[in-house]
Amino acid sequence: MRIALVAPLAEAVPPKLYGGTERVVSWLAEELVRKGHKITLFASADSETSANFVSCARQSLRLAGIRDHIGSTLAMLREVRRRAAEFDVIHFHIDLLPNALFQDLAHKCLVTLHGRLDLRDAHPLYEAFPEMPLVSISDSQRSPMPKSANWLATIMHGLPAHICPFNSKGGDYLAFLGRISPEKRPDRAIEIAKRSGVRLRIAAKVDNADLEYFKTVIEPMLNDPLIEFIGEINESDKREFLGGACALLFPIDWPEPFGLVMIEAMSAGTPVIAWRNGSVPEVISNGVTGRIVESMDDAVAAIATVSLMSRSSVRAEFEKRFTAERMAESYLTAYRSLLALAPVNARNLASVIPLGVRKRLSAQTFIPAQAFNGASQCRTDAQNILDPV
Amino acid sequence: MRIALVAPLAEAVPPKLYGGTERVVSWLAEELVRKGHKITLFASADSETSANFVSCARQSLRLAGIRDHIGSTLAMLREVRRRAAEFDVIHFHIDLLPNALFQDLAHKCLVTLHGRLDLRDAHPLYEAFPEMPLVSISDSQRSPMPKSANWLATIMHGLPAHICPFNSKGGDYLAFLGRISPEKRPDRAIEIAKRSGVRLRIAAKVDNADLEYFKTVIEPMLNDPLIEFIGEINESDKREFLGGACALLFPIDWPEPFGLVMIEAMSAGTPVIAWRNGSVPEVISNGVTGRIVESMDDAVAAIATVSLMSRSSVRAEFEKRFTAERMAESYLTAYRSLLALAPVNARNLASVIPLGVRKRLSAQTFIPAQAFNGASQCRTDAQNILDPV
Repeated sequence: MRIALVAPLAEAVPPKLYGGTERVVSWLAEELVRKGHKITLFASADSETSANFVSCARQSLRLAGIRDHIGSTLAMLREVRRRAAEFDVIHFHIDLLPNALFQDLAHKCLVTLHGRLDLRDAHPLYEAFPEMPLVSISDSQRSPMPKSANWLATIMHGLPAHICPFNSKGGDYLAFLGRISPEKRPDRAIEIAKRSGVRLRIAAKVDNADLEYFKTVIEPMLNDPLIEFIGEINESDKREFLGGACALLFPIDWPEPFGLVMIEAMSAGTPVIAWRNGSVPEVISNGVTGRIVESMDDAVAAIATVSLMSRSSVRAEFEKRFTAERMAESYLTAYRSLLALAPVNARNLASVIPLGVRKRLSAQTFIPAQAFNGASQCRTDAQNILDPV
Repeated sequence: MRIALVAPLAEAVPPKLYGGTERVVSWLAEELVRKGHKITLFASADSETSANFVSCARQSLRLAGIRDHIGSTLAMLREVRRRAAEFDVIHFHIDLLPNALFQDLAHKCLVTLHGRLDLRDAHPLYEAFPEMPLVSISDSQRSPMPKSANWLATIMHGLPAHICPFNSKGGDYLAFLGRISPEKRPDRAIEIAKRSGVRLRIAAKVDNADLEYFKTVIEPMLNDPLIEFIGEINESDKREFLGGACALLFPIDWPEPFGLVMIEAMSAGTPVIAWRNGSVPEVISNGVTGRIVESMDDAVAAIATVSLMSRSSVRAEFEKRFTAERMAESYLTAYRSLLALAPVNARNLASVIPLGVRKRLSAQTFIPAQAFNGASQCRTDAQNILDPV
């Protein structure tokens, strides 16, 4: 298949430092190339890829000090449009703008929404441009969205199987990995350690925006022999850090749309103790890859439970559900569903030009909205229609 | 003429509090309606207008607490597109998005750029979508822009003649009006007052972002009988404040694209002492409506000079160059130039659909770039071509 992957310009693909979206796009691109598809990546010039590459900004915008990304992103989208006929499918990993700019090509486009959708700022867009097929990265991510959203599939992120290698032994400490911020609740992690008497190691960066929270709330809690604050760690230290833990703590207090760190831990065989919020009930198989908890008491009790879990079962579940290969297969299924419907949709969309005078297609006529029937990381909604079970 | 005016959704038209762009759009709309044109205003629901009104957001976005305006703005632009055939001309007062979304209708569109253009963030957009006719609000505003920009005209802002009524007497104090911030240089204003021994009254708001600057730099300078800090004032107090001054100080340290306060002062008959920067040399007629200075010594010396200027000559110059009526006439000239070229441009742009495969029109083929020949607030670049002098 000839597939365009359109990445955000904020970071390189893969990113030099942070950048969950750009990391996922890179993994997907490499896996699709490996499977023999003809992939074209639109991304900033400092990207590295096995795919055909279209450089769309001299440098990734954050490192270039560019704060308003709209101008550069619109320029990239013009180039994507200019070459649209070269692709069977155009897969966007940026939100908002493609819905408006590729409305008339929606029959061969999809947008993966990587961020939280509970802020209502963008809802008028999804109501005004309902045609674009959307992919959520968890089912829970969809819940705040307007009914007009045209969901094609939920496709959970996947990780190359070798990145966080399986550690059969684990270790004797709890791990907290990521970012110090109020919604990530490192304070809960510290309290769990203190109440259970199990050592906690915190590997986390502190952004400027969270410096005051760190200094006033977290730092005063660190003065305890059970708690070790390591600061930010690099990718290779991360593998050892996750593999050597007895459990990852993920005590979040916000609707996390996915949470890559959970599958990184699972890849290493380390079970996860996570608060029931956002994607957590979809990512964690309760009792197999970790425990889903709703209170401090639950969390403290869960430490004993997860220590009895089979680390190889955790890894097996990771391999079944969360590899980059599985993610790529899920996207290929979604692309095929889209193309199977494309002749119908292209006919409907032919009246788009000029866009101003055509009748608006409802999401219902484009891809019938189906009752949403539970979490499955490789189901596509369109497929439900093609192959009714 | 049937004209659509498309306003930013950030504030109501006119704005309840701040909002220079929305104020200008409101004045333009009222003036065009008064002249008998069929005006349709696209703006937030809390706007008030004599024009036909299309409500495009339940409330102006800033007051509604919406931080990311793209979704709502794209939804508004869809509605503008849907109704595009109803208008002879579509006049945008928002930047970036119309260039990409109305590329194929550029022959009947124009965008007034209201902000500073010296940040390079948006330049890739103007290079990728060079078709859209642009209006600058001063010539100096254009200087940092890429060569590909398709300038139609410079049209300076205008103010309804009654808003800041002429005060023939003036008064004995220097005025500083606006916002306390480093680039507005209130510190220079204070120094001018102290060195000249002439009283200074400062009517200015302090945004949260500038609170530290105010507390550390400005507040310590206020402890002087010559300096009076009034804080923020409303529109009706503004008239008296400006009319009762002997001069307005405008000691800016940034490339101000226009500077409404200068023409508000001139409307009241009050001359302006302004640093040579941005639009200043175009707005101030040196020696007639004020003095353009480049140093503290110049500024102090200018106080004696401007006190000898005729306030009625200042007002006369305002009436000649800066009324809303003059602004509306200038825009009508620009609209007519656009329409005179429209058949040619529409033919060129017919190949736009599908947009992806057409050859890019250069700014040169659309409207020939002309050597830029000095400041004139009602010249249109296109007119230069139609009626060569």
